[in-house]
Amino acid sequence: MTSNETSEQASDETRKPADAAERTGVWFVGARGSVATTAVVGALGVSHGLAPTTGLVTEHPELLPDGLPDLSSLVFGGHDVSSQSLLKKAEALAAGGVVPAAVVSAVSAEVETVDAEVRPGHVSGEESTAEAVERLASDIASFRDRHGLARVVVVDVASTQPPVDDPEQMVGLEDPLPVGAVYALAAFRAGAPFVSFTPSPCLRLPVVVEAAERSGLPYAGCDGKTGETLMKSALAPMFVMRALELRSWTSVNLLGGGDGETLADPEAARSKTLAKREGLDAIAGRPVPGPMHIDQVEDLGEWKTAWDHVRFDGFLGTRMTLQFTWQGCDSALAAPLVLDLVRLVSAAHAAGRSGPLPELAFFFKDPIGATEHRLSEQWRDLVAWREGLIA
Amino acid sequence: MTSNETSEQASDETRKPADAAERTGVWFVGARGSVATTAVVGALGVSHGLAPTTGLVTEHPELLPDGLPDLSSLVFGGHDVSSQSLLKKAEALAAGGVVPAAVVSAVSAEVETVDAEVRPGHVSGEESTAEAVERLASDIASFRDRHGLARVVVVDVASTQPPVDDPEQMVGLEDPLPVGAVYALAAFRAGAPFVSFTPSPCLRLPVVVEAAERSGLPYAGCDGKTGETLMKSALAPMFVMRALELRSWTSVNLLGGGDGETLADPEAARSKTLAKREGLDAIAGRPVPGPMHIDQVEDLGEWKTAWDHVRFDGFLGTRMTLQFTWQGCDSALAAPLVLDLVRLVSAAHAAGRSGPLPELAFFFKDPIGATEHRLSEQWRDLVAWREGLIA
Amino acid sequence: MTSNETSEQASDETRKPADAAERTGVWFVGARGSVATTAVVGALGVSHGLAPTTGLVTEHPELLPDGLPDLSSLVFGGHDVSSQSLLKKAEALAAGGVVPAAVVSAVSAEVETVDAEVRPGHVSGEESTAEAVERLASDIASFRDRHGLARVVVVDVASTQPPVDDPEQMVGLEDPLPVGAVYALAAFRAGAPFVSFTPSPCLRLPVVVEAAERSGLPYAGCDGKTGETLMKSALAPMFVMRALELRSWTSVNLLGGGDGETLADPEAARSKTLAKREGLDAIAGRPVPGPMHIDQVEDLGEWKTAWDHVRFDGFLGTRMTLQFTWQGCDSALAAPLVLDLVRLVSAAHAAGRSGPLPELAFFFKDPIGATEHRLSEQWRDLVAWREGLIA
Amino acid sequence: MTSNETSEQASDETRKPADAAERTGVWFVGARGSVATTAVVGALGVSHGLAPTTGLVTEHPELLPDGLPDLSSLVFGGHDVSSQSLLKKAEALAAGGVVPAAVVSAVSAEVETVDAEVRPGHVSGEESTAEAVERLASDIASFRDRHGLARVVVVDVASTQPPVDDPEQMVGLEDPLPVGAVYALAAFRAGAPFVSFTPSPCLRLPVVVEAAERSGLPYAGCDGKTGETLMKSALAPMFVMRALELRSWTSVNLLGGGDGETLADPEAARSKTLAKREGLDAIAGRPVPGPMHIDQVEDLGEWKTAWDHVRFDGFLGTRMTLQFTWQGCDSALAAPLVLDLVRLVSAAHAAGRSGPLPELAFFFKDPIGATEHRLSEQWRDLVAWREGLIA
Ligand SMILES: NC(=O)c1ccc[n+]([C@@H]2O[C@H](COP(=O)([O-])OP(=O)(O)OC[C@H]3O[C@@H](n4cnc5c(N)ncnc54)[C@H](O)[C@@H]3O)[C@@H](O)[C@H]2O)c1
Ligand SMILES: NC(=O)c1ccc[n+]([C@@H]2O[C@H](COP(=O)([O-])OP(=O)(O)OC[C@H]3O[C@@H](n4cnc5c(N)ncnc54)[C@H](O)[C@@H]3O)[C@@H](O)[C@H]2O)c1
Ligand SMILES: NC(=O)c1ccc[n+]([C@@H]2O[C@H](COP(=O)([O-])OP(=O)(O)OC[C@H]3O[C@@H](n4cnc5c(N)ncnc54)[C@H](O)[C@@H]3O)[C@@H](O)[C@H]2O)c1
Ligand SMILES: NC(=O)c1ccc[n+]([C@@H]2O[C@H](COP(=O)([O-])OP(=O)(O)OC[C@H]3O[C@@H](n4cnc5c(N)ncnc54)[C@H](O)[C@@H]3O)[C@@H](O)[C@H]2O)c1
Ligand code: NA
Ligand code: NA
Repeated sequence: MTSNETSEQASDETRKPADAAERTGVWFVGARGSVATTAVVGALGVSHGLAPTTGLVTEHPELLPDGLPDLSSLVFGGHDVSSQSLLKKAEALAAGGVVPAAVVSAVSAEVETVDAEVRPGHVSGEESTAEAVERLASDIASFRDRHGLARVVVVDVASTQPPVDDPEQMVGLEDPLPVGAVYALAAFRAGAPFVSFTPSPCLRLPVVVEAAERSGLPYAGCDGKTGETLMKSALAPMFVMRALELRSWTSVNLLGGGDGETLADPEAARSKTLAKREGLDAIAGRPVPGPMHIDQVEDLGEWKTAWDHVRFDGFLGTRMTLQFTWQGCDSALAAPLVLDLVRLVSAAHAAGRSGPLPELAFFFKDPIGATEHRLSEQWRDLVAWREGLIA
Repeated sequence: MTSNETSEQASDETRKPADAAERTGVWFVGARGSVATTAVVGALGVSHGLAPTTGLVTEHPELLPDGLPDLSSLVFGGHDVSSQSLLKKAEALAAGGVVPAAVVSAVSAEVETVDAEVRPGHVSGEESTAEAVERLASDIASFRDRHGLARVVVVDVASTQPPVDDPEQMVGLEDPLPVGAVYALAAFRAGAPFVSFTPSPCLRLPVVVEAAERSGLPYAGCDGKTGETLMKSALAPMFVMRALELRSWTSVNLLGGGDGETLADPEAARSKTLAKREGLDAIAGRPVPGPMHIDQVEDLGEWKTAWDHVRFDGFLGTRMTLQFTWQGCDSALAAPLVLDLVRLVSAAHAAGRSGPLPELAFFFKDPIGATEHRLSEQWRDLVAWREGLIA
Repeated sequence: MTSNETSEQASDETRKPADAAERTGVWFVGARGSVATTAVVGALGVSHGLAPTTGLVTEHPELLPDGLPDLSSLVFGGHDVSSQSLLKKAEALAAGGVVPAAVVSAVSAEVETVDAEVRPGHVSGEESTAEAVERLASDIASFRDRHGLARVVVVDVASTQPPVDDPEQMVGLEDPLPVGAVYALAAFRAGAPFVSFTPSPCLRLPVVVEAAERSGLPYAGCDGKTGETLMKSALAPMFVMRALELRSWTSVNLLGGGDGETLADPEAARSKTLAKREGLDAIAGRPVPGPMHIDQVEDLGEWKTAWDHVRFDGFLGTRMTLQFTWQGCDSALAAPLVLDLVRLVSAAHAAGRSGPLPELAFFFKDPIGATEHRLSEQWRDLVAWREGLIA
Repeated sequence: MTSNETSEQASDETRKPADAAERTGVWFVGARGSVATTAVVGALGVSHGLAPTTGLVTEHPELLPDGLPDLSSLVFGGHDVSSQSLLKKAEALAAGGVVPAAVVSAVSAEVETVDAEVRPGHVSGEESTAEAVERLASDIASFRDRHGLARVVVVDVASTQPPVDDPEQMVGLEDPLPVGAVYALAAFRAGAPFVSFTPSPCLRLPVVVEAAERSGLPYAGCDGKTGETLMKSALAPMFVMRALELRSWTSVNLLGGGDGETLADPEAARSKTLAKREGLDAIAGRPVPGPMHIDQVEDLGEWKTAWDHVRFDGFLGTRMTLQFTWQGCDSALAAPLVLDLVRLVSAAHAAGRSGPLPELAFFFKDPIGATEHRLSEQWRDLVAWREGLIA
């Protein structure tokens, strides 16, 4: 690896027009986690015609899928701190009902190939931030070179990190940066666009924002919008449009293992609840009271159940109630969005876009650079932006 | 009343520019029913500052409320076949928790004044259709003249009627017209715009469509979108945008007295279920299977509980479920929409619009002239149309 | 087969004291259906230590399991009109998540052995009732002889049959008997106790009751209590004990394929809804109003979702509501009860009991000979009866 | 008041056989709270035939109501630290839909009479415990004498207190006793049986237990079982009887003002959650995991919504789920139980019973002296005990 491969100028080199033969790299931070594994198994399964494209937003004709990288053109690799193999994880997900066992066994050899592309992740305190950025960037660049990829999109799907107390203080590499920020800096250094799918503060730290600016690369985030927050972004606008007064909105999330375990740590959960609250209040135009809980319920496994209780007033103050129960599989909801983001950010990069991509707010609980939380409006913005990429 | 007061040309006479002093008539078909009574009590209550404007869509700044008739400028009257007084009904609604008892007693004198403006409704078979049209139109015109109203908007909130088997066969007054059609013909004859808030087939009968055309009057309908269908129009687009596959959508509606009693008649209920299904299938782009029930549960009174069970597939076919329970008060949901429609149709009339108003689809389960069922898109269409009324 | 093997006196012959070496036959009517297949797979799986005894009521120490036939001592056979093999059905159930795939493959050889014991069932009109009784009884007796079984318990888990209009008219073999009755007559003729797990009228027809009496055999039924009715029998007593007034109880059942398909036939569903209503009214001491629906929702597969909405009044008439959603797998709920019934009825037979067994009401929606529908009281009756079998 | 009126021997004096002319005193600690006020309004309303006896368990024929004090023979008084009048509270409860406004106005004069019997409550630190016991006991005894009451039952329905860290350390009046204990000591000193309807530790403190023993008076508690815990005690036995494995039980309680406000204090809430957990684990025979939340949601007013999510395994480990939503009015659930307890404890006292009354476990979340939490078994124990009072 030569130094300019990982320099911020490297990004220019990768700006060749997209063509059919072109292959796109996907570099997962947290490559052996549930979301990354489901995305890998799913991309392979769909490519081989073993599963329909359900859940893939970018297959909508309005998003002009023909101009986006094919799932079959994606090449996967990543960082992780876990040594449990991707295939083991895929088998565990199959046992938990997240992915079909038949698909996992059909693509198992390819999954092992991906696993061979996973490099050791960064652990705070085990190396200096500067060393880490250099090492991680080198891993990404070398992946790109080795496979002759048109570009690599880095997607952070690592475990949720606690929020940062004084984000605006984090201006240099010497500060105690959250791990997500280290990966973002490495991506930019390697000339790779970056997507934060976790509830991470990293894309708002001055040190990261400045590096992104210098790199001229596009980036997007953060915190994938999959379950209850998705529901809120579809439902809360209904109350507003109909002038029905939201009096309280209670949210209870029951999560099984994996991310649930991380979120059982109240500090980490705080990142998540902050991101979840914001959208509702923004749509309502004022804070809507009501408790919000994220609880780990071990035996739910990969499944999540959310119960929401919404009290609203109608005409003349008449008291009414809406309750819903959402029973979803988080990884199966998140994985196709991750692939959508790779395709769209890849197209943005090919089209020379740089900086935050607020038009991707449709995918996020806490969209960088955007204030729009209403799902339908986000969809319109997304469609318009996608059309604009071509013009 | 002179004949040209009720002639179809009369409408022109009423097309004077709106001004502050102007008063607008509201003529309810079914004036002593729950929806009409709640609308009357509510309009009076809000006008006197006894209740907030919750539920009134037309108070949204985007809908430019300043250019719409004030609630306090509305004058109410109507037809009904019931002889129970409006005040009795209002007191019953207060006892049932639909409207605050304090508001009812504060406005009771005015409610009695409205009751004095209720004229005998039309009962099939008791008079010929031609006679009925003439008599009913005369009631409307005389109401307008007596009160010096700028215009009268007729709103059908009478009991749900069964669907018509061969609507396209109904071309003349001699045919056995559904009662809603008779009222629509009377409205047009009296030069009054017409809104069908019931699940009625009347606005699609050739005899009515032609009369509307000849009259040059605007009209809108049909079947107010208040509960479960409202939810569907907010939620179904979420599944579509996210490419989640809707496998089944089950809907169960439990209704108390009033409209529930009418809908316990399977024939009448059929009108309602037809209107309710259509929107979902239109949004999904294909029929979504699943049973739909409307049941009367006496002891629910004025309250309605809807339970919906939605089965959808995510990525790789993972099976997920959404359930919701909606506990609403139908009359309190419908009444402000009725007032919104009066204000908007009144403005359309003042602006010289004629024919069906598809941009009011936001308010209806089965919108005349429109194919858009997605709530957010309907909202955008409504806002754009409202702006266009002024330009 | 000699005539006295199938004669009604044959039962005496089989009344030898239970001993450890003894093996018990289980003869399923509907042997290739979901419930029977799950029972077979489960009995084998538990016997081999591949699954815990979850769901097996007879493993409760209070029911003195040591004196009941071991699961591993059961020998299975049966009648069916379907030619799809038990193993195919077991694999389909594994794919649907009802039974673990690993258990099915571990016991597949034994499942094939059971399948070899399935004989052609009886189809109305294809043979006379007398011929059918003779043929079916002979199958049962020959199964007993061939395997040297201490006794055979016949359990009807065939598809739900429509109710019979004039049950009291069915006094002889020449009458158009429902198929369940034909099987019951055959069981008694073969000297085998009979359990009706379906919502069948057969155990109340004079012709069957008399044959049972002549045979001196014990019998039990009918309609296994698994889901919503189970819930009602646990919950309704709470309202009664607490003097809370039940105003309405609405029940909605969504069923997938299999039995759901049968119940999509309104005639067959009528049997089920009748059985479901009765218990609630008996517990409440008066009819509790409220709609009840059984709907087929194809994509639910082997799963059932029931939603119940209960309106009750508290002190001074305060209106309150309870809703519940039950998401269960019907075959997995039914199968262990079927095994429990085999064990208990077998013990009753060994102890010389005859006639209806009302103390087994715990297991049934529509218990023969019993008026008690409260679950806890049924449990006490069951425990006391079980103790009495030994004394 | 003479000293022996309040001495512990006084109780004997009040042990005259119950007769028709006899009147029973009810002394509420927290007399101006929601539960007490609802009980007073309800007792008066039912006595005057303005409301049915819904919710009154003691009206069940099995509980031999004829031998219990009539509601119309009850005389009310109590302690409170609030100066808001009972009538004001009653009107607020009527506005909140807890009690009918018509009943409140019909009994308003009698409510004011009760209010005149309310004496200042005890506030920790404002007087010594010994002084407080003396003063409060004197209030109770003087109430009994003034009205010539056969006996007075003291019922603690004051605000929830935090749990005590070392209950077994509290052996004398000099220890920092929780307020509930002070009231219990005062009751015993005044010769009055005591019922703790709050989640209070007081009936388990050595100092209280010894005073109770010396007094020879009966007592019962604690924490009225009204909503979710009631449901658990009806439902959990179903899972156990059916050998269905409880994997997790999640409970979420949303409460409005009043007690909700107190429970927003995490310390006070801890008393409540401890009491709520215990019953389930006792029924299941082992700890059942799952989060439990008690949240204040201001706008729910006097209403409570509880959502429970129960995961259980069936045969062969099949995963199933039960969810329920309970929408109840806590005061309307609690008030009749309070009256039931007064009637039953009064009868126990008349019959010469002393010490804890474990057979009243039916009424409590955390029954003193009892280990039985299953509702039906508690009911049987109650009925048997009631019969025994007479024999
Ligand atoms: N699934 C969803 O619906 C959803 C929605 C929004 C956001 N997310 C976010 O996606 C992320 C991943 O979720 P998941 O369910 O896959 O979690 P997971 O726990 O299964 O996977 C996280 C992976 O990150 C790895 N990891 C941890 N620290 C790391 C580090 N310092 N460097 C590199 N790798 C590291 C872990 O070893 C693990 O393999 C979480 O942050 C979650 O909050 C998920
Ligand atoms: N409330 C809602 O949320 C909602 C939503 C959509 C549509 N709607 C429709 O609004 C209508 C009114 O509902 P409601 O709850 O007020 O019902 P309602 O039964 O309380 O009132 C209907 C009124 O119509 C009168 N009526 C019956 N036949 C008539 C006739 N031939 N001429 C004149 N009047 C006649 C009745 O006497 C009654 O006063 C129904 O058709 C209902 O389907 C209501
Ligand atoms: N699963 C439950 O929770 C539950 C509860 C109560 C009662 N039941 C009853 O158990 C029965 C079986 O349910 P299932 O889910 O297994 O249904 P299923 O449709 O899977 O199986 C029924 C079997 O009966 C066979 N059959 C039909 N007619 C027959 C005949 N004349 N002779 C012999 N066999 C015949 C069918 O071929 C099929 O194999 C139904 O009657 C159902 O109502 C089930
Ligand atoms: N409502 C139910 O379903 C239910 C069920 C179980 C237990 N409880 C318990 O009943 C109690 C009363 O509930 P509520 O809803 O009536 O509450 P509330 O807040 O309406 O009433 C409590 C009353 O106690 C008074 N109080 C506070 N401290 C006092 C003191 N030191 N001395 C005397 N009075 C004092 C308050 O002033 C108030 O009037 C609570 O402890 C609650 O936990 C209620
Ligand atoms: Na509605
Ligand atoms: Na069932």
